[in-house]
Amino acid sequence: MSIKIAIMGYGNLGKGIECAIKQSHDLELTAVFTRRNPETVKILTEGVKVYPAEEVFEHKGGIDVLILCGGSATDLPKQTPEFAKHFNVVDSFDTHARIPEHFEAVDRAAREGGKAALISCGWDPGMFSVNRLYASAVLPEGKDYTFWGKGVSQGHSDAIRRIDGVLDAKQYTVPVDSALEAVRSGKNPELSTRQKHTRECFVVAAEGADRERIENEIKTMPNYFADYDTTVHFISAEELEREHSGIPHGGFVIRSGKTGWDGEFSNIIEYSLKLDSNPAFTSSVIASCARAIHRMSVEGAVGCKTLFDVPPAYLSACSAEELRKKLL
Amino acid sequence: MSIKIAIMGYGNLGKGIECAIKQSHDLELTAVFTRRNPETVKILTEGVKVYPAEEVFEHKGGIDVLILCGGSATDLPKQTPEFAKHFNVVDSFDTHARIPEHFEAVDRAAREGGKAALISCGWDPGMFSVNRLYASAVLPEGKDYTFWGKGVSQGHSDAIRRIDGVLDAKQYTVPVDSALEAVRSGKNPELSTRQKHTRECFVVAAEGADRERIENEIKTMPNYFADYDTTVHFISAEELEREHSGIPHGGFVIRSGKTGWDGEFSNIIEYSLKLDSNPAFTSSVIASCARAIHRMSVEGAVGCKTLFDVPPAYLSACSAEELRKKLL
Repeated sequence: MSIKIAIMGYGNLGKGIECAIKQSHDLELTAVFTRRNPETVKILTEGVKVYPAEEVFEHKGGIDVLILCGGSATDLPKQTPEFAKHFNVVDSFDTHARIPEHFEAVDRAAREGGKAALISCGWDPGMFSVNRLYASAVLPEGKDYTFWGKGVSQGHSDAIRRIDGVLDAKQYTVPVDSALEAVRSGKNPELSTRQKHTRECFVVAAEGADRERIENEIKTMPNYFADYDTTVHFISAEELEREHSGIPHGGFVIRSGKTGWDGEFSNIIEYSLKLDSNPAFTSSVIASCARAIHRMSVEGAVGCKTLFDVPPAYLSACSAEELRKKLL
Repeated sequence: MSIKIAIMGYGNLGKGIECAIKQSHDLELTAVFTRRNPETVKILTEGVKVYPAEEVFEHKGGIDVLILCGGSATDLPKQTPEFAKHFNVVDSFDTHARIPEHFEAVDRAAREGGKAALISCGWDPGMFSVNRLYASAVLPEGKDYTFWGKGVSQGHSDAIRRIDGVLDAKQYTVPVDSALEAVRSGKNPELSTRQKHTRECFVVAAEGADRERIENEIKTMPNYFADYDTTVHFISAEELEREHSGIPHGGFVIRSGKTGWDGEFSNIIEYSLKLDSNPAFTSSVIASCARAIHRMSVEGAVGCKTLFDVPPAYLSACSAEELRKKLL
């Protein structure tokens, strides 16, 4: 019997989850909920309906897992605890610094309702976190490095778009090759923010706008760009559309650590992702997380979990026997 | 209170586990057991004694986890079920094809004794398996590739040493760069055994031995070398000792898979290891597995487990709160 999944919020992520469900024979999309007018939301799966968000409670019996596709800034801190009282839920809360408080709030709500929640699913937090954990557990004497990119940062692109005279923009975060190589060599370098990543911006300026001022405003913007070596390219709207309409991303998690009685042996563990579409891959991870939390809930799990608590086998559609035979 | 670990068998692996325990404040080595004369076995940890293997049952109360360091060919198929009746055990059984039957035998024994066993711990099987599992769970439509090396294969080195006229030898398994690049490009190539790895042999021949015959015997040896492009270098015993005395290893697990409604997005997940010492790293993984199976046993787990069943957090010495705060 397939696991009945509902999606709350149909943006890039919601659509990605719909696509991921199509690839998984044991998952079934039963409903999509939206805060927009449902009639304006066209989804891809035939025979599945779009409902107003507030009607979700009427569907309680038909939903095994509700996947929350809101944003981490304002949506999820409110939504996840609210829905975790009534449904098994999965979210992709990704504000790293606020994960402990989000965990507490969701845990309280889920326990109140006897439900299970899996938060911060995706690739960072998510697959990158799991790899940081395995690597540090097996190499306790070592050092962790995470590099992001080359990929599009939505937040940084938005920040550029808010500058006066900017019509559109796309920002790429790029890991510095020499820093990656230094880490891979086992030298355990101390790396500043500037040494790890550069930022490359493609900007469409309004006709007659002062490009020098725009470039300067970008490069000196605190938090976003001031601590990085930033390159700004002014291009046409057509070129932006043609060359930069995708949302690729990726990155590297590397641990460099020692083994041996006196730490005489060096070891490098490296995990990397290269993704054509950031939201599509994030959604794929989330879909496997929905499978896992459903199984854990069936076995009696209650409260908030993260991928750190999930036995890897629970993420797969294959049986334990099959996994041992084919992948161990 | 620390977890009390005993080691059964003190070769490269047993010694590696002793070193890994030194790096973990929550693990404590309490005893080493050997089939050799204990007086001839010198270990590194002060204050810990070496006992004859058969005395292990007298120490039942003082051992939380018994780590079995025998070989997969003949030792572990017998030892792991035998000891799993009386102790929580960890082994590094690595004959992939025989894992299902080993699992069954250990599971039966462990359930009989109410104990927990974690088998096939190390990096392949082990960390590589876990990465194959995560990658295939999050990218169900895709293809897996595992490459080994560059590293020393003990079995292949031994096979060369058995050839008449060979005094000593070391064999390196080397992944083929162009095959790795083809996989990373997302082309999903079909690769033959010969296309994935080459074999490089360093051989010390006896004085007057027929080198041409030796080289031919190596290159045509069925299973070991016949299916590979093999290079043979004859060197002196001194050079072998000076340049090839280490046991480095490593490798790559790559999954190439599609996301999107029509599989329009490509994704590459890559995990790699570069290890100065194969047994030292394997031991480090095993030590974290001992921690995990102890915790699972305390919580009531019984029977045979693999890393697929272990929530990643159980492998780490850090608390769940700390992990969420620092690594998620």
